[in-house]
Parts: sequence; structure tokens; C-alpha cells
Amino acid sequence: MAPGSRTRLDPERRRAQLVDLGRRMLSSRPLDQVAIDDIAAEAGISRGLLFHYFPTKRDFHVAVARSAAQDLLARVDAAGPDLPPAERLRAGVDAFVDHVTANRAAYVAFIRGSGGGDPELAAIHDDTRAAITERVLGGLAVPRPAPPRVRAAVRGWVALAEEVTVDWLAQGGPAAGALGRDEVVAMVDEALAALVTLAGGPPPAGG
Amino acid sequence: MAPGSRTRLDPERRRAQLVDLGRRMLSSRPLDQVAIDDIAAEAGISRGLLFHYFPTKRDFHVAVARSAAQDLLARVDAAGPDLPPAERLRAGVDAFVDHVTANRAAYVAFIRGSGGGDPELAAIHDDTRAAITERVLGGLAVPRPAPPRVRAAVRGWVALAEEVTVDWLAQGGPAAGALGRDEVVAMVDEALAALVTLAGGPPPAGG
Repeated sequence: MAPGSRTRLDPERRRAQLVDLGRRMLSSRPLDQVAIDDIAAEAGISRGLLFHYFPTKRDFHVAVARSAAQDLLARVDAAGPDLPPAERLRAGVDAFVDHVTANRAAYVAFIRGSGGGDPELAAIHDDTRAAITERVLGGLAVPRPAPPRVRAAVRGWVALAEEVTVDWLAQGGPAAGALGRDEVVAMVDEALAALVTLAGGPPPAGG
Repeated sequence: MAPGSRTRLDPERRRAQLVDLGRRMLSSRPLDQVAIDDIAAEAGISRGLLFHYFPTKRDFHVAVARSAAQDLLARVDAAGPDLPPAERLRAGVDAFVDHVTANRAAYVAFIRGSGGGDPELAAIHDDTRAAITERVLGGLAVPRPAPPRVRAAVRGWVALAEEVTVDWLAQGGPAAGALGRDEVVAMVDEALAALVTLAGGPPPAGG
């Protein structure tokens, strides 16, 4: 759908189009800094119609954040149960680095404490971290619930993965040339095995 | 100074007393959830006098956050240049875990993205992370500026240290008995050496 085209869309597709648009915007700036008029103009619809789908800007923001989170988990899951755990993990890290890159502004806001402090957005972000933790723990040969040390290591690793990616982007990302995307993915991936081993857990097997 | 005592204090000491009070409150709840009247009552002064020292609640909050950050860095530095780097690092991690524990509510707000989004508070928090990163890099035998991989590993480790401590506290902390404080300190400490090694840097020496 070309931006600005005043095509008639059924409500569900229109809603999805607006959420996609919001997700593209998230890569460059926090949604709370985007004017509603800009979103409507970009979608080629009136401000009134935008509010028909999302009664408040915050509703729009929450829908965008939820869509991004679902997409991340879907991509992590798509890496497939038939792959050995270590390869599944690497594919998950790959998806995660891309996700943080695409949602950079939102992650910076969350990690740097400069977000608007919206509890629903914070909950989506936190649920995503918890879901990633669960998926990683599921890929390790540990009893469930996981031993406290291993669980702490994986939680810490999720925070590390976010920070390393955001910091890499803040330093100029791939354009700066100091570190390539694949180097960042490899480093984050290898960090998990090192941290889990340190915590007394088994490293992801079969890589 | 007993809370509630209406002792006359010179302005500087009164200011310090109020900041101390705010810091004690931070261990249990975010300052933005504390009523100004409660702070005044606890300090044994009138609401008007409190506003004389801190014209807005936000001024008070910023002063409290700044004091806590300065105190952390002072404690990290107090570990002394005469100690071998690895011992200095362990002492620093010790201070850091205590600091996050004492400022738990503020850290949860920052890490979980549920803070009020105040840019000055976010900057204090971010400057503290950067200062810790610099001190850790200073304790490693790496050229400065540090190689990008090592810098990324240390930035990631700071995020991991915050998350592991906050998550440990969220799981019940020392009271839950699953992980002791010293185990958390050891795990965070050992994680740094593992991550720096992974990044191709030299581990802290002389422990």
C-alpha cells in the first residue's frame, strides 16, 4: 500500500496498515514524539478516521508495541523445533537484534528510562522479556522451574542483549563500521552460553 | 537525627537531612509515589519549609537521585587504587549490588520502563552507567578508547548487573533463600571476566 493513497480498505486491513505504519516510524523516533496529523497524512486518511480506529494516540501506541512484540516472538518461534537448540538460539538472537534495531527508539526510551512511563507499554516490554527468557530456558536442558542461578543468568542476558544492541546502534551501528551486525549477533549469542555455563547450567547443545 | 524532631538545622545540614530521608524512602517505593506531606512530616518540618529547600517535588527527586549516584561512585572509588584490579572490581560489584538494593524502586522504574520519563533523572541514571563502564574499562589492561567489542561487553555487563540484582530482589531477594547476596555478587563479578574474555579483552588481573 503506497503511503498517501486514499484507497478504501476494510476495517481490519486498515487497522493493520496503520499499525505497520506506526512500526516503521518506531525505528527512527519514539511514537510519543510523532504528531497524530503526521500519522494520518502518511496513511492518507483523515485525522477523524484515524481516531475511529484508535480513540487515543496511546491506543495506537499500545497496538503498535503489541504488534512488534508478537512479531518478535513469532519470528523466534519460527526458527523451528526441528533445529538443534544452539541453532534455534542463534536464529532467535538474530531476530532479536533485528527487532531491537527496528524498534530502536522504543528500546532506547525503555532502557534509558526516558520513556513516558506508560504502564501498559512497560508491561508489553516486560512480558516480552519474560517470554524470551522462557523460550531460552526451554531450549536449555534444565529442569523447570529453572534453577535460580540459571534463571538469573538468562534474565541478565536478555538485558545485556538489549543494551549491547542499543549501544551498538548509538555508536553508529553498521554505518560506523567498528562492529558488524553479525559480530553483534555472535557476541550476544556466545554470551548466553558463557553466562549459563557460569551459572552451572548446560550450554545450548548441538550447534 | 530522629525523624519528627523539630530541631533547628543550618540550611546545608537540613538539605542533606532531607536528601537522606528521600534516599531511605527510595528503597521501598518510587519517589513519585511519595506525597510531599509525608516527606515533610517524616522530616518534622512544614510543607512550606520543604518547598523552601526544593521548590518542586521534582527538584527533590533529582537531588536524591544525584546524591545516590555520587555515593555509589564514591564507594566504587573508595575500593582503592592499591588493590589488585580483580579485588577492586569485586568491591565495586559489592557496592553496586548494595546500591541497586537500596535504590530498588528507582531501578525497577528505570529498567522496566515504568519511570515517569523525566529526562533529568534518566540522564543521571545513564551518566552513572557510563561512569561505571569507564571505571571498569580503567581496571582492564586495554588501550583507550577501548576496543568496540570490549566496550560493548562492559556496557552489556552493566545492564546485566542491574537486571540480575533487580530480578533477584523481585524473586524475594535474600529472604527467599534461593540465592544469597554473596552468590549474586559472585555471579555478577564472574560474568564480567567471562564477557570481557569473550570480547577478546584481558580479564581483570591479580585477584
